[in-house]
Amino acid sequence: MKYALVVFPSKKLQDLVNSYRKRYDPHYALIPPHITLKAAFEASENQAETFTAQLKEIAKKYNPFLLKVTKVKSFEPVSNTIYFKVEPTPELEGLFADFRDHLPGDPPPYPFVPHITIGQKLSKEEHADIYRQLEMVGIEHKEMVNRFHLLYQLENETWTVYETFHLGKD
Amino acid sequence: MKYALVVFPSKKLQDLVNSYRKRYDPHYALIPPHITLKAAFEASENQAETFTAQLKEIAKKYNPFLLKVTKVKSFEPVSNTIYFKVEPTPELEGLFADFRDHLPGDPPPYPFVPHITIGQKLSKEEHADIYRQLEMVGIEHKEMVNRFHLLYQLENETWTVYETFHLGKD
Repeated sequence: MKYALVVFPSKKLQDLVNSYRKRYDPHYALIPPHITLKAAFEASENQAETFTAQLKEIAKKYNPFLLKVTKVKSFEPVSNTIYFKVEPTPELEGLFADFRDHLPGDPPPYPFVPHITIGQKLSKEEHADIYRQLEMVGIEHKEMVNRFHLLYQLENETWTVYETFHLGKD
Repeated sequence: MKYALVVFPSKKLQDLVNSYRKRYDPHYALIPPHITLKAAFEASENQAETFTAQLKEIAKKYNPFLLKVTKVKSFEPVSNTIYFKVEPTPELEGLFADFRDHLPGDPPPYPFVPHITIGQKLSKEEHADIYRQLEMVGIEHKEMVNRFHLLYQLENETWTVYETFHLGKD
């Protein structure tokens, strides 16, 4: 079974991101807008029981934090993905490192660049056009994050939430 | 903001249900297969903070329970919805009644018939055809349920999970 760990931002930010994703992201229907903390990894349901307990402990180590979205960026030339850049925080980086070090799955092939995807799998021309346009519109958004979610993937490639974890002490 | 309360069954059952919904349910892309415990209701984010605490208390009152799916049924003539009938249990009925009595929103206009929708908004002919076919295939499934989820709806009508609640004592 495939699992992943994400932060879902507020409805307000999700609605804004979806207004772009609807046109520019073929994964639009598979998962709501999110910040990936650990990308899809394979684990059994038994393993999941163990790491769910670990996730509870990891969540306690980090306090709720301010999420700042400050600009539109692109992963070009690595990929044609356009995204809202999320300012790194000690909490985001700590969660990322803990998940990488303590959960099943291979370590990620790229350094951690926290982001919310707004467009991907675009042609070279589309990418250039849309990126220029969105860069001009820009983004400036702040909100508190106090939770993350463990998801699993269904056969149709959509994601279902298995569990919510709250940052900080209960 | 619109909220709702649901149980997501196991991946196995969701995959089976989606194999039908893909063709027969126009809501297929909006939400994973689920049992509705409280249908969409309007509440403010402030209200949500209050009733989230209440939901935690309600969840503690009920133990994990065995979910049994035993037949294919239809809500005809009330609607053309075809569903997997879920056997009522004291836990499902208790949760339904507590949500109805303690959360915002109007009481539901119909009695509680726990179910997982597999097709809806079908034409009269489609409904008759598909219902006959699925009734013959039938369904026989059991699994433990130990959690429910609070969701909210985005502007594009898809649903995001806000929080997971575990049945029984922590």
